Amino acid sequence: MKVGFLQFCPQRGQVKENLRTIIGLIDGQECDLWVLPELCNTGYLFSDPDEAWDLAEEIPSGSTTEKLAEISVRNRSAIVAGIAERDEDQLYNSSILVTPKGDIFRYRKLHLFGYEKEVFSPGDREPEVFNIGRAMVGMMICFDWYFPETARILMLKGAQIICHPSNLVLPYCQKSMPTRCIENRVFAITANRIGSEVVGNRELVFTGGSLIVDPLGEVLAKASEDSEEFKIVDIVPKISSDKKLTRMNELRSDRRVELYGELLRNGDSDGSE
Amino acid sequence: MKVGFLQFCPQRGQVKENLRTIIGLIDGQECDLWVLPELCNTGYLFSDPDEAWDLAEEIPSGSTTEKLAEISVRNRSAIVAGIAERDEDQLYNSSILVTPKGDIFRYRKLHLFGYEKEVFSPGDREPEVFNIGRAMVGMMICFDWYFPETARILMLKGAQIICHPSNLVLPYCQKSMPTRCIENRVFAITANRIGSEVVGNRELVFTGGSLIVDPLGEVLAKASEDSEEFKIVDIVPKISSDKKLTRMNELRSDRRVELYGELLRNGDSDGSE
Repeated sequence: MKVGFLQFCPQRGQVKENLRTIIGLIDGQECDLWVLPELCNTGYLFSDPDEAWDLAEEIPSGSTTEKLAEISVRNRSAIVAGIAERDEDQLYNSSILVTPKGDIFRYRKLHLFGYEKEVFSPGDREPEVFNIGRAMVGMMICFDWYFPETARILMLKGAQIICHPSNLVLPYCQKSMPTRCIENRVFAITANRIGSEVVGNRELVFTGGSLIVDPLGEVLAKASEDSEEFKIVDIVPKISSDKKLTRMNELRSDRRVELYGELLRNGDSDGSE
Repeated sequence: MKVGFLQFCPQRGQVKENLRTIIGLIDGQECDLWVLPELCNTGYLFSDPDEAWDLAEEIPSGSTTEKLAEISVRNRSAIVAGIAERDEDQLYNSSILVTPKGDIFRYRKLHLFGYEKEVFSPGDREPEVFNIGRAMVGMMICFDWYFPETARILMLKGAQIICHPSNLVLPYCQKSMPTRCIENRVFAITANRIGSEVVGNRELVFTGGSLIVDPLGEVLAKASEDSEEFKIVDIVPKISSDKKLTRMNELRSDRRVELYGELLRNGDSDGSE
C-alpha cells in the first residue's frame, strides 16, 4: 500500500488557489492514501471569527470536500485533509477522509492550540477509526499529538495508520512521533505545512519536517523544513496489528486497565499544588 | 536541588557485594535524590523462582532497605533503588524510596517484561507520589515507561520528578524519555545498568545510557552505554508544576477527559482484528 504526505504552503484565505495547488501536486500520482496539512484550504490565521466563518465549509457539501472526493474517486486514492468546518452556528478545526468508494468521514480536533480557541469549538465527539479497505485509519490534528491519549484511543479502536494533518510551529512533534508509533505499534503520517503567516501582531513560522513513521519508530520518509514536497512510501499496514512486543508481552493485554482507568479519567488531580 | 543517577553493573546474586559497590560510590556525595537501577542488589536473571525467593527481601525489614535507609539519613539524600521484594508468598519487582526523614516508600512494577512474568507477580497497587520535602516524587520501573499511562498517572497525581530504575535491553527508552517528559512537563531520572548476564540459554546485554531529562525534553545528563558512572545535576523541581504550554493551553485542563476516560479503560477494544 502506498501512503504519502503533501507538504506545502497554503495561501491565507485563498481556498480556490490552495485547492488548485493541491490538485496540481497529487492528481495522477499513484498513492493509496494521501495526508495533507491542517487547514490546508484556508491557511491558519484568521483576522477574526467572521473571516473564518466565511472561509469555512459544511461537510460534505463544501467545495473542498466535494473536489477532493472527486479526485479521490478518479485517482483511487483516499485523502485526509484538514479544513475549517462550519456546522450550524459552530466552527471546527476538522479533517476529512474521502475514499475511492465515495465515503466521506470526519474528525474534529479535540485539543485546540492557543489562538484556535478564539475561533473554533473543540471537537465534541470521540475519535473514530475508519475502514478504507486496505487499512484501518484514524485521524488526529496537529496539537492532538501532544496528548498521548489521542493516539492511544485510536490504537485501541484498531487504527493501523494515524493520519496527522498539522500546522506545527513548535519543534517537539517531529521528534516525538516515533514514540507515539512505538508505544502504540502503529504507522503515523504527519503532514505539516511550511511558510509563515502574519495577521496583526501574530506571526507564525511553520516548521515543515513532515514525516512517515513505522510501528517500530523508524522514520520511513521525512521532508525538509521549508520546501514544498511530497513523499510516498510503500507500507504493509497489517504489521501494525501485531502487538506482541516479546513472546510474553502484548501491548494491549499488558495494559493494567484495572489499575489506571479511573486515574486517567480524573483530570482534576494535582496533588503537588 | 541536586539529583543523580548511579549506573553500574550489579553482580548476579551478590547482594552484599552490590550493596558495597553502591555505598562506595554514593556515600559522602552531595546529592538530594539518587536513583539506582532496577534489581540493583540481586542482578536481573534468576535461575529459577527459588533463587529469586532466597535473594528477595521484605520491605522495610530487608538488609538492602535497612542499609540504604541508614545511608539516606547519614547523607541527607533520598534514594530510589530497585530491589526484589518478598511479601508473604509473592515476589515483586519493586523499588523503594528512602528519605532522610526516615520514610520508606515502595512501588511495585506494574508492567512486567518477558521472563519477569515467570518470577514476579505484577504490581497490585496504583502508582503513588511521595513528598520528599524538596519535591514530589513518583516511581516507575524499566518497561513501565513503554505505557504512557504510567507517567501520565504520576503526573496527574502531582509528580514533579519521575524516578525510573531500569535494566533496559532495548534501545527505545532512552530516545523516548524526552517525549514522556514533554507530554507531562516533568523531570525524569532513568538509572539503567550496564554489563550482561547469562543464565542457561538466556543472554542479556544491558544498554546503559542512563539519563536525566527536564520538563521541556532537554537531556541534562547522559551516561555512556557501557561504563560505571554517576552524574549529578542541579534542578528546580517546581518548574514542573507549571503546566501552561501557551497563554491559552494548560496541559491538565486541556485534556478532554469527558471524551476519553472510558475509552482508555477499555483494554479489550481492537476493531482491526
